[in-house]
Amino acid sequence: MKGTEIVEVAKEVELENPILIEGLPGLGMVGRIVVRYLAKSFGAERLAFLYSPHFPYYVLVNKKGDVRLLRAEFRYLKNKSGKGDLVLLTGDSQAQTIEGQYEVADRILEFAQKLGVKTIVTVGGFRVETEEMPKVMAAATSPELLEKSVAAGAVASRAGNPIVGTAGLLLGMAHFRKIDALCLLSETRGYLPDPKSAKSVLEVLQKLLGLGVDLAGLDKEIEKAEQIVVRMRQIEKRRELQARKRRKLEEEKATYIS
Amino acid sequence: MKGTEIVEVAKEVELENPILIEGLPGLGMVGRIVVRYLAKSFGAERLAFLYSPHFPYYVLVNKKGDVRLLRAEFRYLKNKSGKGDLVLLTGDSQAQTIEGQYEVADRILEFAQKLGVKTIVTVGGFRVETEEMPKVMAAATSPELLEKSVAAGAVASRAGNPIVGTAGLLLGMAHFRKIDALCLLSETRGYLPDPKSAKSVLEVLQKLLGLGVDLAGLDKEIEKAEQIVVRMRQIEKRRELQARKRRKLEEEKATYIS
Amino acid sequence: MKGTEIVEVAKEVELENPILIEGLPGLGMVGRIVVRYLAKSFGAERLAFLYSPHFPYYVLVNKKGDVRLLRAEFRYLKNKSGKGDLVLLTGDSQAQTIEGQYEVADRILEFAQKLGVKTIVTVGGFRVETEEMPKVMAAATSPELLEKSVAAGAVASRAGNPIVGTAGLLLGMAHFRKIDALCLLSETRGYLPDPKSAKSVLEVLQKLLGLGVDLAGLDKEIEKAEQIVVRMRQIEKRRELQARKRRKLEEEKATYIS
Amino acid sequence: MKGTEIVEVAKEVELENPILIEGLPGLGMVGRIVVRYLAKSFGAERLAFLYSPHFPYYVLVNKKGDVRLLRAEFRYLKNKSGKGDLVLLTGDSQAQTIEGQYEVADRILEFAQKLGVKTIVTVGGFRVETEEMPKVMAAATSPELLEKSVAAGAVASRAGNPIVGTAGLLLGMAHFRKIDALCLLSETRGYLPDPKSAKSVLEVLQKLLGLGVDLAGLDKEIEKAEQIVVRMRQIEKRRELQARKRRKLEEEKATYIS
Repeated sequence: MKGTEIVEVAKEVELENPILIEGLPGLGMVGRIVVRYLAKSFGAERLAFLYSPHFPYYVLVNKKGDVRLLRAEFRYLKNKSGKGDLVLLTGDSQAQTIEGQYEVADRILEFAQKLGVKTIVTVGGFRVETEEMPKVMAAATSPELLEKSVAAGAVASRAGNPIVGTAGLLLGMAHFRKIDALCLLSETRGYLPDPKSAKSVLEVLQKLLGLGVDLAGLDKEIEKAEQIVVRMRQIEKRRELQARKRRKLEEEKATYIS
Repeated sequence: MKGTEIVEVAKEVELENPILIEGLPGLGMVGRIVVRYLAKSFGAERLAFLYSPHFPYYVLVNKKGDVRLLRAEFRYLKNKSGKGDLVLLTGDSQAQTIEGQYEVADRILEFAQKLGVKTIVTVGGFRVETEEMPKVMAAATSPELLEKSVAAGAVASRAGNPIVGTAGLLLGMAHFRKIDALCLLSETRGYLPDPKSAKSVLEVLQKLLGLGVDLAGLDKEIEKAEQIVVRMRQIEKRRELQARKRRKLEEEKATYIS
Repeated sequence: MKGTEIVEVAKEVELENPILIEGLPGLGMVGRIVVRYLAKSFGAERLAFLYSPHFPYYVLVNKKGDVRLLRAEFRYLKNKSGKGDLVLLTGDSQAQTIEGQYEVADRILEFAQKLGVKTIVTVGGFRVETEEMPKVMAAATSPELLEKSVAAGAVASRAGNPIVGTAGLLLGMAHFRKIDALCLLSETRGYLPDPKSAKSVLEVLQKLLGLGVDLAGLDKEIEKAEQIVVRMRQIEKRRELQARKRRKLEEEKATYIS
Repeated sequence: MKGTEIVEVAKEVELENPILIEGLPGLGMVGRIVVRYLAKSFGAERLAFLYSPHFPYYVLVNKKGDVRLLRAEFRYLKNKSGKGDLVLLTGDSQAQTIEGQYEVADRILEFAQKLGVKTIVTVGGFRVETEEMPKVMAAATSPELLEKSVAAGAVASRAGNPIVGTAGLLLGMAHFRKIDALCLLSETRGYLPDPKSAKSVLEVLQKLLGLGVDLAGLDKEIEKAEQIVVRMRQIEKRRELQARKRRKLEEEKATYIS
């Protein structure tokens, strides 16, 4: 592996008017949850793997005891959206270096272009401390795409906001390949997988792409995630108290010993 | 994008005796303020963009809701200086790695050479804690250029002073391309955009290049910047006081709890 | 040296059905102890060196006062295993950058393929705080290989466990070269060379490859290592006490001075 | 500049049996002081510059107000040593990345080979806390070279000692170019330029290469360096006292405020 490489596993697939939806790991795992939910709901088929020497240098053990490199995975869905066939991209990691980030985004766009993709939607999280229903911020490389996402429930992102990582670079580099691109960033606290934030994005995608996906399956995960947050706060509180006590005791001991 | 690339957007431009003025982001944003002020005052036209995989891996949302890669931008001005046409270079960022810094400087010089540039002026900040009128330090690749800058109000830099980043590397690498280069570094505290420091440089450039630019437009920004400094100091002071109180309270609480 | 390079030192060697056992430095030096013990016990011969600009940038002084680059070393053993000739790989270091890790693993696999290797066993440590007999966790690129290792005393690794570094990447990248690979990770506290953990792996290898190696030679080293742990804990304890006393004294002094 | 480059400035020089002495910046600046002292004492002539994108990304202002890239410099001396002409190498910096270190060492050796160099002596510092006369440790790629250096007053380095940076890598990589290499490391505390340590190396080089250089010129610098150490210790002590007082005062203030 000399650099980032894409290995196709389903070569004879014909895609019509394909739209790429990207959701690599990031804040609140929003993009990854969105893309995996779509892939599972519709039973998406494998299309290709992306390997990169800029991913972390470890491998994962699968459920079968098998071992594999970190990778990103392209899947496809035919006839699920009124706008075109779908290509779904998610994976284990983002590139770990600056130059790696640009290389991976470039390779994704090169492959998208080869597949005939004319529109890309990237999905991610946007850090906000809120208890309310997560809003979805949109930014796009064309005014039409931005308008459509707003009509589908997103809010146009404010000028100056940076979009970090692959979700951003794909937009920045898309016009070199004559591809339109939209980024949907959903509000999230970001430190834990956030299915509630993902649901907000799915609702926008639902309308934008005419998807007909059932989102009820996410509600159980949302409940679980909220219970975890409650439990973590309790643990945090207890830890703080104990740390204070310990410090106090040690100071007393030191006094006693000296 | 395999490496740093320059994409020309105005190909038929004929420049006479062009002089490149570079001011990428750095201490006190001095270089960027200088170049943007010249570009705005004279209505400079776009010439080319420089993209690099060594810039940070995020994209920016524009006012129109559009998204773009970080980049540097070349603009040009015809017939504004008695010394030659001007090429103005500023941008969003400097390269983030050592090797990237050398690559970006090399690509800028290659493009400058192609444009027929024979003289480069780089602009930046020089960290000094002072309340006085910022002095402008000059260093150059030729004694004549240094003398001219001193005649225009700059002070020759002391031996041993390092010039960090693109503003420095352009000078260091200029002679490989038979280009003369001058660096003007203006005194600044450096942690906030410093239009007062930028004005000092513009006054030197004014005389050096015979520019006839009206600098009054900067005075409002200078006033605003000074108000920000005053407010930040007040906030800083209050924070310190509160931090002390908090520490005190926590120690008492810990005593109570244990 | 433009990149990672393998320099062969014994070119005419014919290996039958060679199996590569890799054990570069890592947690508890388990892999390195295992491979060096096999090499020494059976008197393995030198086959090749691997040099890399991704290894740390220092050199080592040998016993003879000679100096050499950091490197990894391939040795070979004929007719010691019923399963095939052995190629042993250990060395001074692992690659120090992400991209270097992928490059070194790729070069090792390329060389293994050239030698006709069809099976690779990588050996490492797995961090666990335990006083018990170290267990050996196994993961593999084929179910048969995993089963055989379990039959030889290893435990199948749980899904989700990452395997970091060369020991992992060799498995992840093996299938691109049509090579089967098994990873054996032995439990270790990890911060000191751990011959006891290495012995657990050697027992598995013994059965798996039909090796007939005498493991008694390790018992002295195990005893020594345990004495070091005991001594280090005593030193640790004493240091802690002294640090507390010192802090106390300094506080008193400060009170006195002010 | 695509990578590390050597630019020759004196092309017609014929060197007989040239010996390269390298002393780039490092611990106690020992190597640099040694090479610069030889160059100045004998009036060495410029031979070539080495530039590298792995050096830090700043430039230096010269005494004349001129600006230059960081670089290393080859100079030469004819007929000063009974063993052959001398090539002296020192510079502003070492490479800042692992891969850069290997690249710079490789380029130096390539150039040395082109010049017909058969022997390299690298010079550096070795960190030891001592007040005594600095000893010089030697390591070499051949037993003869090591013996000669011991006969000239050096001590053979103990096995296991790492030699970090260019001084080490040149030895590690020399045999790929059929060049013999010796490293002389002189004891130094390392945090300040250490002419006393440099003098120890020069005494060894004197005998080893039959140099006839007058070392008295170093004694003034040694005296100055020792005065700086004394002054720094006084400053250090005062600072510590003041820091304690300040902490005390702040604690009292906090008590008063709350």
